[in-house]
Amino acid sequence: MTNQLTKIVALNSWNAIITQANTIFDAISNEDMMKEVAPNRSTGVYLLGHLIAVHDRMLPLLGIGEPMYPQLFETYLKNTDLKKYDSTTVIELREYWTAINAKLTAAFDSYEAEEWLQKHTTISDEDFANEPHRNKLSVLLSRMNHLSYHLGQISFLKG
Amino acid sequence: MTNQLTKIVALNSWNAIITQANTIFDAISNEDMMKEVAPNRSTGVYLLGHLIAVHDRMLPLLGIGEPMYPQLFETYLKNTDLKKYDSTTVIELREYWTAINAKLTAAFDSYEAEEWLQKHTTISDEDFANEPHRNKLSVLLSRMNHLSYHLGQISFLKG
Repeated sequence: MTNQLTKIVALNSWNAIITQANTIFDAISNEDMMKEVAPNRSTGVYLLGHLIAVHDRMLPLLGIGEPMYPQLFETYLKNTDLKKYDSTTVIELREYWTAINAKLTAAFDSYEAEEWLQKHTTISDEDFANEPHRNKLSVLLSRMNHLSYHLGQISFLKG
Repeated sequence: MTNQLTKIVALNSWNAIITQANTIFDAISNEDMMKEVAPNRSTGVYLLGHLIAVHDRMLPLLGIGEPMYPQLFETYLKNTDLKKYDSTTVIELREYWTAINAKLTAAFDSYEAEEWLQKHTTISDEDFANEPHRNKLSVLLSRMNHLSYHLGQISFLKG
């Protein structure tokens, strides 16, 4: 019961942030997504690609499956020139964003409450025995904060 | 055991964000805190005051105690001119920020794991019976995302 509650609270928070993100992205035109969020800072489209790549990597990290868009990783995770973006259009990126979050949400909905306390895939059994807090819930909270951090920036592109 | 783990994971996330916030604030001079984070957006000092006010209101909300700095609420919660700030200096605000988070952290450390699943103070017993996910943990996650959101913006004032 209490673990079930924790699961509901964590997923409610996750879903609320995703909804907030979609509301913000919906309020920004494709043209405005090409602009820098602040002078000499990342463009909206770069940050969208970055968020897709980070969420995509949650699939293997949480044992859900293979990444859906690994071709984005080079540009949106490793590129140090934050103003660059690859040939993927903002329209395509918007579709990827919806698809990756739909896949994550479907997986989260199917998790048993206890599953959030299981280890993620990049920690060894030995380390996890000593650090049981490095579980799937910790990944969820970390990515939630990461999304909120960049949403605060992306929101500057709204009219 | 599992509730204890959830508590640890949630508090680890909270503490990590507070540490991240302090690192960012420490990297911004008092002079730069007076600047807008982006053209026609809030100043750093306004956002700091806003974060203090929001965290201060967690004290009554979570049943920890009375607000420490209610005099800030008018300016930093209700003011619609986000560039305004009151006569409190940025040096004072930095001290308030440290103090309010120290008080929250001390309270959180003393919570029993089950306490996170109890209701917060602005929901009635009746509503809570129907919506048990509106508990103290949900407040913590919500404020964590709020802080991350504004940190993404404040980070633009770093060198």
